[in-house]
Amino acid sequence: MNSDFLAKARALAAAGRELHARGWVPATSGNFSMRLASDSVLVTASGRHKGRLNEQDFLAVDLQGQPVDGGKPSAETLLHTQLYARFPKVNAALHCHTPASTVLSMHSPEAELVFEGYELQKAFAGVDTHESVLTIPVFDNTQDIAALAKSVDAYFDRQPDCPAYVIRGHGVYCWADSLDACQRELEALDFLFHCELELRRLRG
Amino acid sequence: MNSDFLAKARALAAAGRELHARGWVPATSGNFSMRLASDSVLVTASGRHKGRLNEQDFLAVDLQGQPVDGGKPSAETLLHTQLYARFPKVNAALHCHTPASTVLSMHSPEAELVFEGYELQKAFAGVDTHESVLTIPVFDNTQDIAALAKSVDAYFDRQPDCPAYVIRGHGVYCWADSLDACQRELEALDFLFHCELELRRLRG
Amino acid sequence: MNSDFLAKARALAAAGRELHARGWVPATSGNFSMRLASDSVLVTASGRHKGRLNEQDFLAVDLQGQPVDGGKPSAETLLHTQLYARFPKVNAALHCHTPASTVLSMHSPEAELVFEGYELQKAFAGVDTHESVLTIPVFDNTQDIAALAKSVDAYFDRQPDCPAYVIRGHGVYCWADSLDACQRELEALDFLFHCELELRRLRG
Amino acid sequence: MNSDFLAKARALAAAGRELHARGWVPATSGNFSMRLASDSVLVTASGRHKGRLNEQDFLAVDLQGQPVDGGKPSAETLLHTQLYARFPKVNAALHCHTPASTVLSMHSPEAELVFEGYELQKAFAGVDTHESVLTIPVFDNTQDIAALAKSVDAYFDRQPDCPAYVIRGHGVYCWADSLDACQRELEALDFLFHCELELRRLRG
Repeated sequence: MNSDFLAKARALAAAGRELHARGWVPATSGNFSMRLASDSVLVTASGRHKGRLNEQDFLAVDLQGQPVDGGKPSAETLLHTQLYARFPKVNAALHCHTPASTVLSMHSPEAELVFEGYELQKAFAGVDTHESVLTIPVFDNTQDIAALAKSVDAYFDRQPDCPAYVIRGHGVYCWADSLDACQRELEALDFLFHCELELRRLRG
Repeated sequence: MNSDFLAKARALAAAGRELHARGWVPATSGNFSMRLASDSVLVTASGRHKGRLNEQDFLAVDLQGQPVDGGKPSAETLLHTQLYARFPKVNAALHCHTPASTVLSMHSPEAELVFEGYELQKAFAGVDTHESVLTIPVFDNTQDIAALAKSVDAYFDRQPDCPAYVIRGHGVYCWADSLDACQRELEALDFLFHCELELRRLRG
Repeated sequence: MNSDFLAKARALAAAGRELHARGWVPATSGNFSMRLASDSVLVTASGRHKGRLNEQDFLAVDLQGQPVDGGKPSAETLLHTQLYARFPKVNAALHCHTPASTVLSMHSPEAELVFEGYELQKAFAGVDTHESVLTIPVFDNTQDIAALAKSVDAYFDRQPDCPAYVIRGHGVYCWADSLDACQRELEALDFLFHCELELRRLRG
Repeated sequence: MNSDFLAKARALAAAGRELHARGWVPATSGNFSMRLASDSVLVTASGRHKGRLNEQDFLAVDLQGQPVDGGKPSAETLLHTQLYARFPKVNAALHCHTPASTVLSMHSPEAELVFEGYELQKAFAGVDTHESVLTIPVFDNTQDIAALAKSVDAYFDRQPDCPAYVIRGHGVYCWADSLDACQRELEALDFLFHCELELRRLRG
């Protein structure tokens, strides 16, 4: 492991402790990644507890999700690497099982979550007013990760500015040009998901 | 930066860490200020994460919101400076995106949130019984901050004792003669907003 | 201040930090006490933030609530001292504005909260099965503390084993033979209040 | 106390602090255990606060729940020892009064909680797809622990792969081959219980 690998592993481990303390990566759920180079990515190894990560819990993969130096990556690695392959500016991606994203996506069969009127929509790149519409797609869950990656790719073809997506009953994926920006975006998403759930409850 | 500037920047940074831990300033939302002198105010710079503030994340502005020594203040600086300009006793102001204030204000088009029967109403200056009525105005959100400041001013003309206000889908503003008092008032507001939301849910 | 006074002040200050972190004493709400002797009690001074107490924030009062060595006790001191006067075994009392006790008591005009079927009812002295009925009285709030103390006394005449009570829109009072036992009882009460609120929501 | 006893007592005390901070073992509720040998188990002593355990708060019992060296074990010890007696691979068991398990089990008289469509079902041994059905039995509460243990045994006869169970109004029991695995399973259960409660609320 070189120093870049170690620094990024430690940054993701620190993020993992914070995200676990919020209840967003229960048990061994979730997976995290950061770009190492134009053609390689650091990802969490399969089956680790994201609140207790250390440097041994990461490995390098290429953009097809294949390990560069051995190890067993997260089953969902392809969902990470497709982001780095498609978007050259993406340097970090986080997948969390937040309760709000899980519940919202299981509550109704809708294919998109639509947010309007929230000032916090401005947390997303390119949004400068609450009088916009923020759309987060919801994909049906499947254990066939390659098929899921294809659905995501097809959506990106139509909506290249999509800032994040949800997998039904399975949580949220988001990505950004830095880990800090990715964590901020995740905070904004959870806020919006939480408020939307509350409003649906009040509206009955 | 002189020692007064630094001491106030550090006090607001510490407040920011606490408020972020509560989930009240997700992503880079919210903005904070403290009075430096009769005609100048310390405010948070534009776009910073309020849970990770340091001294470089603040700047001095005059009461019209113009930077004294350069820097780019929060877009909503005018909403802070109007408080210091109008109320000579105000020394601190906090704006947070609390989930409860966001949800309550989006739930219905009401122009005022009215609280009755809570002992905690006594947390506000001049209130000495729960048998009073506490009114918190709700302004519709707009990206035109100067127009919003005008609406707030017009409300203050009619209700000079207004202790705080909400911007729809955008969170809460409160102010006080000290940062400690402002934080206490914010705690009281969040408690009232949270209880009111719970009661609306129970009443269906 | 002698060493017993200091030790108890520090124990209550530590309890206050914990209770504030849970959101049970927002702003300057709540008040705490411990017995000093058969005829004197340590109470929190008026208007202090219960999450930031230090030794100067306490004073000694007699069982009529009068300061022994000066100072201004909490406005509700009489509600504490009546417990020490009536129950010789009581050594600690905590009053908190928990959200669940506030919301439950404002939701309906009932004069008693009744709990059945919870294993945790066994946390209260003399209860050894969930097949019992735990009754917590709710008194209407008033700023006339002497009148409130009389209502509480009249209730105790009928129900001397009453373990705690709620004041409508104003929170919960509980007491025990030690501060540890009092905190445990408060945890149990909040659990029961929280679960009851959830059940009322589900039952619609 | 030998070093194995001490190490396991300290591991359970650390787990207790974490579980208490989450609000899952209010007052003196809950009880914990770890296997010491093929025929002995470490369990929490009766009536201790699970957030403040130290080494003196544990004792060794045999697989019938009888103390090996004196002490008074938790009243529910038999529910722990039956797991170690029946399942040779079990090395740790946790019983917590989580709010979600309490509320869900009191909400309706159902004898089983059924989870479908959650990716997190894969946190349980032998489950490799969300397109499975996870069934958690609910036993009616009784103070007759021997009778309760018999009901649990009868259920295990029919469903030997049962990963956890709930006692109505009384919380959840889970077990695993290590304390770490048991805590992960408990996190997964609480996530599922919490999401299910939210969905029931939304569905009205």
